[in-house]
Amino acid sequence: MKSNGLSQEEISMRLEELNDACQVPWHLEGNTLKKRFAFKNFNAAFGFMTRVAIKAEKEDHHPEWSNVYGRVDVTLTTFDTEGITEKDFAMAAFMDRISGL
Amino acid sequence: MKSNGLSQEEISMRLEELNDACQVPWHLEGNTLKKRFAFKNFNAAFGFMTRVAIKAEKEDHHPEWSNVYGRVDVTLTTFDTEGITEKDFAMAAFMDRISGL
Repeated sequence: MKSNGLSQEEISMRLEELNDACQVPWHLEGNTLKKRFAFKNFNAAFGFMTRVAIKAEKEDHHPEWSNVYGRVDVTLTTFDTEGITEKDFAMAAFMDRISGL
Repeated sequence: MKSNGLSQEEISMRLEELNDACQVPWHLEGNTLKKRFAFKNFNAAFGFMTRVAIKAEKEDHHPEWSNVYGRVDVTLTTFDTEGITEKDFAMAAFMDRISGL
């Protein structure tokens, strides 16, 4: 199923809702949604990544991400539509929920 | 235990040995050792990352790495000595051995 791209207005509204719930906000960069997660160590960071990886496979929606020790930098976008979709917001909310940060 | 930095000559020799065994070579960039691993899909890429993560914790020697779908870009260096050490070569050889590529 192809996800539809969101309008700029919809993206702003969804971003505000998303960031209401957490201390470190997601931000927009081009057609992507970005956030840095800072965990206390590598075990915590990779535990988080593993839970996200399993979810990503289930949803067939994969992040771009990098990791060094306790830090995980995430970029979300939907390649099909070359923009941010509901799938990205759903994945972002999942990450916030399980991060424990 | 602090690992000792290797001389440029030692690094060149070890790099040649390392790359003898695999198709896609590691290369030097500044004080780091880099390689891109290309897996067939995300499941294979993250499976590889998980095995490396467990090894990294055991050795207390962690990579910098990024992933998107089947691609894993790895950077190895030893922060203590600000250079490449035996630990980096051991980790690189482990990655090659388990990658199945």
